[in-house]
Amino acid sequence: MTETHWLDETELHAWRAFLAMQRRLFARLAEHQQRECDISPADYDVLAQLSEAPAGRMSSAELGAATQWEKSRLSHHLARMTRRGLVRREAAGAGRYPDVVLTGGGRAAITKAAPVHIADVRAWFIDAIGAERLARFAEDCEAVCAALDANPPAE
Amino acid sequence: MTETHWLDETELHAWRAFLAMQRRLFARLAEHQQRECDISPADYDVLAQLSEAPAGRMSSAELGAATQWEKSRLSHHLARMTRRGLVRREAAGAGRYPDVVLTGGGRAAITKAAPVHIADVRAWFIDAIGAERLARFAEDCEAVCAALDANPPAE
Repeated sequence: MTETHWLDETELHAWRAFLAMQRRLFARLAEHQQRECDISPADYDVLAQLSEAPAGRMSSAELGAATQWEKSRLSHHLARMTRRGLVRREAAGAGRYPDVVLTGGGRAAITKAAPVHIADVRAWFIDAIGAERLARFAEDCEAVCAALDANPPAE
Repeated sequence: MTETHWLDETELHAWRAFLAMQRRLFARLAEHQQRECDISPADYDVLAQLSEAPAGRMSSAELGAATQWEKSRLSHHLARMTRRGLVRREAAGAGRYPDVVLTGGGRAAITKAAPVHIADVRAWFIDAIGAERLARFAEDCEAVCAALDANPPAE
Protein backbone atom coordinates (compact mmCIF):
# COMPACT_ATOMS: atom_id res chain seq x y z
CA MET A 1 0.00 0.00 0.00
CA THR A 2 1.48 3.35 -1.04
CA GLU A 3 1.03 6.48 1.04
CA THR A 4 -2.56 7.64 1.14
CA HIS A 5 -3.49 10.44 -1.21
CA TRP A 6 -6.14 12.09 0.99
CA LEU A 7 -8.95 14.10 -0.56
CA ASP A 8 -8.39 17.83 -0.94
CA GLU A 9 -11.11 20.34 -0.08
CA THR A 10 -12.76 20.30 -3.52
CA GLU A 11 -12.74 16.51 -3.69
CA LEU A 12 -14.11 16.12 -0.18
CA HIS A 13 -16.80 18.67 -0.93
CA ALA A 14 -17.87 16.78 -4.06
CA TRP A 15 -17.92 13.41 -2.29
CA ARG A 16 -19.98 14.80 0.59
CA ALA A 17 -22.36 16.58 -1.80
CA PHE A 18 -22.95 13.27 -3.58
CA LEU A 19 -23.43 11.35 -0.31
CA ALA A 20 -25.91 13.91 1.02
CA MET A 21 -27.77 14.05 -2.27
CA GLN A 22 -28.34 10.34 -2.67
CA ARG A 23 -29.21 9.85 1.00
CA ARG A 24 -31.73 12.70 1.04
CA LEU A 25 -33.20 11.90 -2.39
CA PHE A 26 -33.85 8.22 -1.64
CA ALA A 27 -35.23 9.00 1.82
CA ARG A 28 -37.65 11.53 0.35
CA LEU A 29 -38.75 9.26 -2.50
CA ALA A 30 -39.37 6.44 -0.01
CA GLU A 31 -41.22 8.63 2.47
CA HIS A 32 -43.51 10.09 -0.17
CA GLN A 33 -44.22 6.73 -1.81
CA GLN A 34 -45.02 5.18 1.57
CA ARG A 35 -47.33 8.02 2.56
CA GLU A 36 -49.17 8.30 -0.75
CA CYS A 37 -49.26 4.67 -1.85
CA ASP A 38 -48.31 2.54 1.17
CA ILE A 39 -45.49 0.83 -0.68
CA SER A 40 -41.76 0.77 -0.03
CA PRO A 41 -38.96 1.27 -2.57
CA ALA A 42 -38.42 -2.51 -2.53
CA ASP A 43 -42.11 -3.11 -3.27
CA TYR A 44 -41.93 -0.55 -6.05
CA ASP A 45 -38.92 -2.23 -7.67
CA VAL A 46 -40.63 -5.61 -7.76
CA LEU A 47 -43.97 -4.24 -8.97
CA ALA A 48 -42.32 -2.12 -11.67
CA GLN A 49 -40.30 -5.07 -12.97
CA LEU A 50 -43.31 -7.37 -13.05
CA SER A 51 -45.58 -4.78 -14.66
CA GLU A 52 -43.18 -4.55 -17.60
CA ALA A 53 -42.79 -8.33 -17.98
CA PRO A 54 -44.99 -10.33 -20.39
CA ALA A 55 -48.20 -11.38 -18.60
CA GLY A 56 -46.84 -9.74 -15.40
CA ARG A 57 -44.81 -12.89 -14.75
CA MET A 58 -41.11 -13.48 -14.06
CA SER A 59 -39.06 -16.37 -12.78
CA SER A 60 -37.33 -15.89 -9.42
CA ALA A 61 -34.01 -15.90 -11.25
CA GLU A 62 -35.10 -13.13 -13.62
CA LEU A 63 -36.42 -11.04 -10.75
CA GLY A 64 -33.23 -11.62 -8.78
CA ALA A 65 -31.13 -10.48 -11.73
CA ALA A 66 -33.35 -7.43 -12.26
CA THR A 67 -33.36 -6.28 -8.62
CA GLN A 68 -29.79 -7.40 -7.83
CA TRP A 69 -30.95 -8.67 -4.44
CA GLU A 70 -29.55 -11.70 -2.73
CA LYS A 71 -31.71 -14.81 -2.91
CA SER A 72 -32.77 -14.74 0.75
CA ARG A 73 -33.71 -11.05 0.67
CA LEU A 74 -35.76 -11.60 -2.48
CA SER A 75 -37.47 -14.66 -1.04
CA HIS A 76 -38.42 -12.94 2.23
CA HIS A 77 -39.59 -9.83 0.48
CA LEU A 78 -41.75 -11.79 -1.97
CA ALA A 79 -43.30 -13.69 0.95
CA ARG A 80 -44.37 -10.40 2.52
CA MET A 81 -45.73 -9.08 -0.80
CA THR A 82 -47.62 -12.34 -1.30
CA ARG A 83 -49.29 -11.96 2.11
CA ARG A 84 -50.30 -8.43 1.16
CA GLY A 85 -51.84 -9.68 -2.08
CA LEU A 86 -49.48 -7.74 -4.37
CA VAL A 87 -47.97 -10.81 -6.04
CA ARG A 88 -48.64 -14.54 -6.10
CA ARG A 89 -46.41 -17.55 -6.72
CA GLU A 90 -47.25 -19.97 -9.51
CA ALA A 91 -45.68 -23.36 -10.16
CA ALA A 92 -43.02 -23.17 -12.86
CA GLY A 93 -42.21 -26.84 -13.37
CA ALA A 94 -40.20 -29.53 -11.63
CA GLY A 95 -37.04 -28.38 -9.85
CA ARG A 96 -37.76 -24.68 -10.32
CA TYR A 97 -38.82 -22.04 -7.82
CA PRO A 98 -42.39 -20.91 -8.46
CA ASP A 99 -42.72 -17.94 -10.83
CA VAL A 100 -43.75 -14.56 -9.44
CA VAL A 101 -46.94 -13.12 -10.89
CA LEU A 102 -48.46 -9.67 -10.48
CA THR A 103 -51.97 -9.83 -8.96
CA GLY A 104 -54.82 -7.43 -9.73
CA GLY A 105 -53.98 -5.70 -6.46
CA GLY A 106 -50.33 -5.44 -7.43
CA ARG A 107 -51.28 -4.01 -10.82
CA ALA A 108 -53.51 -1.43 -9.11
CA ALA A 109 -50.71 -0.53 -6.69
CA ILE A 110 -48.10 0.11 -9.39
CA THR A 111 -50.65 2.00 -11.52
CA LYS A 112 -51.19 4.33 -8.58
CA ALA A 113 -47.56 4.52 -7.52
CA ALA A 114 -45.80 5.02 -10.86
CA PRO A 115 -47.12 8.56 -11.54
CA VAL A 116 -46.18 9.61 -7.98
CA HIS A 117 -42.70 8.16 -8.38
CA ILE A 118 -42.12 9.72 -11.80
CA ALA A 119 -43.37 13.14 -10.67
CA ASP A 120 -40.95 13.00 -7.74
CA VAL A 121 -38.01 11.88 -9.88
CA ARG A 122 -38.80 14.70 -12.31
CA ALA A 123 -39.12 17.39 -9.62
CA TRP A 124 -36.19 16.37 -7.45
CA PHE A 125 -33.71 14.96 -9.97
CA ILE A 126 -34.44 15.59 -13.69
CA ASP A 127 -35.63 19.20 -13.40
CA ALA A 128 -33.28 19.97 -10.52
CA ILE A 129 -30.23 19.10 -12.63
CA GLY A 130 -31.81 20.57 -15.75
CA ALA A 131 -32.10 19.38 -19.34
CA GLU A 132 -28.87 20.98 -20.54
CA ARG A 133 -26.76 19.34 -17.79
CA LEU A 134 -28.46 15.98 -17.49
CA ALA A 135 -26.59 14.14 -20.24
CA ARG A 136 -23.26 15.20 -18.78
CA PHE A 137 -24.33 14.07 -15.31
CA ALA A 138 -25.26 10.68 -16.80
CA GLU A 139 -21.83 10.48 -18.46
CA ASP A 140 -20.19 11.04 -15.08
CA CYS A 141 -22.27 8.24 -13.59
CA GLU A 142 -21.25 5.97 -16.45
CA ALA A 143 -17.61 6.93 -15.89
CA VAL A 144 -17.91 5.68 -12.29
CA CYS A 145 -19.36 2.38 -13.51
CA ALA A 146 -16.57 2.10 -16.09
CA ALA A 147 -14.00 2.67 -13.33
CA LEU A 148 -15.63 -0.06 -11.24
CA ASP A 149 -15.40 -2.40 -14.22
CA ALA A 150 -11.89 -1.52 -15.25
CA ASN A 151 -9.94 -0.16 -12.35
CA PRO A 152 -9.85 -2.24 -9.18
CA PRO A 153 -7.71 -0.59 -6.49
CA ALA A 154 -4.14 -1.76 -5.96
CA GLU A 155 -4.04 -4.47 -3.30
CA MET B 1 -53.07 15.24 -9.84
CA THR B 2 -52.33 16.49 -13.35
CA GLU B 3 -51.49 14.11 -16.18
CA THR B 4 -48.18 12.35 -15.68
CA HIS B 5 -45.24 13.74 -17.59
CA TRP B 6 -43.39 10.46 -18.13
CA LEU B 7 -39.62 10.43 -18.59
CA ASP B 8 -38.33 10.59 -22.16
CA GLU B 9 -35.47 8.39 -23.32
CA THR B 10 -32.68 10.79 -22.28
CA GLU B 11 -34.24 11.38 -18.86
CA LEU B 12 -34.81 7.69 -18.23
CA HIS B 13 -31.26 6.94 -19.31
CA ALA B 14 -29.85 9.52 -16.88
CA TRP B 15 -32.00 8.28 -13.99
CA ARG B 16 -31.00 4.67 -14.62
CA ALA B 17 -27.32 5.60 -14.99
CA PHE B 18 -27.48 7.33 -11.60
CA LEU B 19 -29.31 4.39 -9.95
CA ALA B 20 -26.82 1.87 -11.31
CA MET B 21 -23.85 4.03 -10.35
CA GLN B 22 -24.81 4.56 -6.73
CA ARG B 23 -25.90 0.94 -6.26
CA ARG B 24 -22.70 -0.47 -7.74
CA LEU B 25 -20.40 2.07 -6.08
CA PHE B 26 -21.74 1.53 -2.56
CA ALA B 27 -21.79 -2.25 -3.00
CA ARG B 28 -18.15 -2.23 -4.10
CA LEU B 29 -17.02 0.12 -1.31
CA ALA B 30 -18.80 -2.07 1.25
CA GLU B 31 -17.46 -5.32 -0.16
CA HIS B 32 -13.88 -4.09 -0.24
CA GLN B 33 -14.03 -2.53 3.24
CA GLN B 34 -15.50 -5.73 4.66
CA ARG B 35 -12.89 -7.92 3.00
CA GLU B 36 -9.86 -5.76 3.85
CA CYS B 37 -10.87 -4.41 7.25
CA ASP B 38 -13.82 -6.50 8.48
CA ILE B 39 -16.00 -3.44 8.98
CA SER B 40 -19.29 -2.45 7.35
CA PRO B 41 -20.22 0.97 5.94
CA ALA B 42 -22.27 1.59 9.11
CA ASP B 43 -19.26 0.75 11.30
CA TYR B 44 -17.15 3.06 9.17
CA ASP B 45 -19.57 5.97 9.55
CA VAL B 46 -19.59 5.69 13.34
CA LEU B 47 -15.83 5.22 13.65
CA ALA B 48 -15.08 8.12 11.28
CA GLN B 49 -17.40 10.45 13.19
CA LEU B 50 -15.93 9.51 16.57
CA SER B 51 -12.34 9.72 15.36
CA GLU B 52 -12.90 13.36 14.39
CA ALA B 53 -14.65 14.26 17.66
CA PRO B 54 -12.71 15.72 20.62
CA ALA B 55 -11.37 12.86 22.75
CA GLY B 56 -13.12 10.40 20.42
CA ARG B 57 -16.36 10.98 22.33
CA MET B 58 -19.85 12.00 21.20
CA SER B 59 -23.27 12.03 22.80
CA SER B 60 -25.88 9.69 21.33
CA ALA B 61 -27.74 12.76 20.10
CA GLU B 62 -24.68 14.14 18.27
CA LEU B 63 -23.98 10.76 16.70
CA GLY B 64 -27.62 10.40 15.68
CA ALA B 65 -27.53 13.82 14.01
CA ALA B 66 -24.24 13.03 12.26
CA THR B 67 -25.31 9.64 10.90
CA GLN B 68 -28.96 10.54 10.31
CA TRP B 69 -30.02 7.15 11.63
CA GLU B 70 -33.17 6.53 13.61
CA LYS B 71 -32.68 6.12 17.33
CA SER B 72 -33.38 2.36 17.38
CA ARG B 73 -31.02 1.65 14.47
CA LEU B 74 -28.26 3.66 16.15
CA SER B 75 -28.82 1.98 19.49
CA HIS B 76 -28.74 -1.55 18.04
CA HIS B 77 -25.73 -0.81 15.93
CA LEU B 78 -23.79 0.67 18.84
CA ALA B 79 -24.62 -2.39 20.95
CA ARG B 80 -23.04 -4.60 18.28
CA MET B 81 -19.98 -2.35 18.00
CA THR B 82 -19.64 -2.36 21.80
CA ARG B 83 -19.63 -6.17 21.83
CA ARG B 84 -16.90 -6.12 19.17
CA GLY B 85 -14.82 -3.73 21.28
CA LEU B 86 -14.88 -0.89 18.73
CA VAL B 87 -16.68 1.60 21.00
CA ARG B 88 -17.70 1.76 24.64
CA ARG B 89 -20.50 3.59 26.45
CA GLU B 90 -19.67 6.01 29.26
CA ALA B 91 -22.06 7.64 31.70
CA ALA B 92 -22.93 11.18 30.64
CA GLY B 93 -24.93 12.37 33.62
CA ALA B 94 -28.42 11.93 35.02
CA GLY B 95 -31.20 11.54 32.48
CA ARG B 96 -28.89 11.28 29.49
CA TYR B 97 -27.99 8.31 27.33
CA PRO B 98 -24.38 7.25 27.91
CA ASP B 99 -21.86 8.91 25.61
CA VAL B 100 -20.19 6.85 22.87
CA VAL B 101 -16.40 6.65 23.08
CA LEU B 102 -13.91 5.25 20.60
CA THR B 103 -11.83 2.42 22.11
CA GLY B 104 -8.21 1.65 21.22
CA GLY B 105 -9.54 -1.14 19.01
CA GLY B 106 -11.92 1.26 17.32
CA ARG B 107 -9.11 3.75 16.74
CA ALA B 108 -6.98 0.98 15.21
CA ALA B 109 -9.87 -0.11 12.99
CA ILE B 110 -10.50 3.36 11.54
CA THR B 111 -6.77 3.99 11.13
CA LYS B 112 -6.59 0.87 8.99
CA ALA B 113 -9.87 1.43 7.17
CA ALA B 114 -9.62 5.12 6.28
CA PRO B 115 -6.79 4.79 3.71
CA VAL B 116 -8.61 1.88 2.05
CA HIS B 117 -11.83 3.85 1.90
CA ILE B 118 -10.18 7.01 0.56
CA ALA B 119 -8.20 5.10 -2.09
CA ASP B 120 -11.44 3.48 -3.26
CA VAL B 121 -13.35 6.78 -3.32
CA ARG B 122 -10.50 8.32 -5.30
CA ALA B 123 -10.23 5.47 -7.82
CA TRP B 124 -13.94 4.87 -8.36
CA PHE B 125 -15.45 8.35 -7.93
CA ILE B 126 -13.01 11.29 -7.85
CA ASP B 127 -10.66 10.13 -10.61
CA ALA B 128 -13.43 8.45 -12.57
CA ILE B 129 -15.34 11.72 -12.91
CA GLY B 130 -12.13 13.71 -13.28
CA ALA B 131 -10.88 16.95 -11.76
CA GLU B 132 -12.25 19.21 -14.47
CA ARG B 133 -15.79 17.81 -14.16
CA LEU B 134 -15.99 17.19 -10.43
CA ALA B 135 -17.09 20.67 -9.34
CA ARG B 136 -19.93 20.63 -11.83
CA PHE B 137 -21.03 17.20 -10.67
CA ALA B 138 -21.10 18.52 -7.11
CA GLU B 139 -23.20 21.48 -8.25
CA ASP B 140 -25.72 19.09 -9.75
CA CYS B 141 -25.88 17.17 -6.46
CA GLU B 142 -26.44 20.43 -4.60
CA ALA B 143 -29.17 21.36 -7.07
CA VAL B 144 -30.99 18.13 -6.15
CA CYS B 145 -30.70 18.98 -2.45
CA ALA B 146 -31.97 22.51 -3.15
CA ALA B 147 -34.95 21.05 -5.00
CA LEU B 148 -35.70 18.78 -2.05
CA ASP B 149 -35.62 21.82 0.23
CA ALA B 150 -37.61 24.15 -1.98
CA ASN B 151 -39.79 22.23 -4.34
CA PRO B 152 -42.10 19.60 -2.89
CA PRO B 153 -44.16 17.91 -5.62
CA ALA B 154 -47.72 19.06 -6.26
CA GLU B 155 -50.13 17.01 -4.15
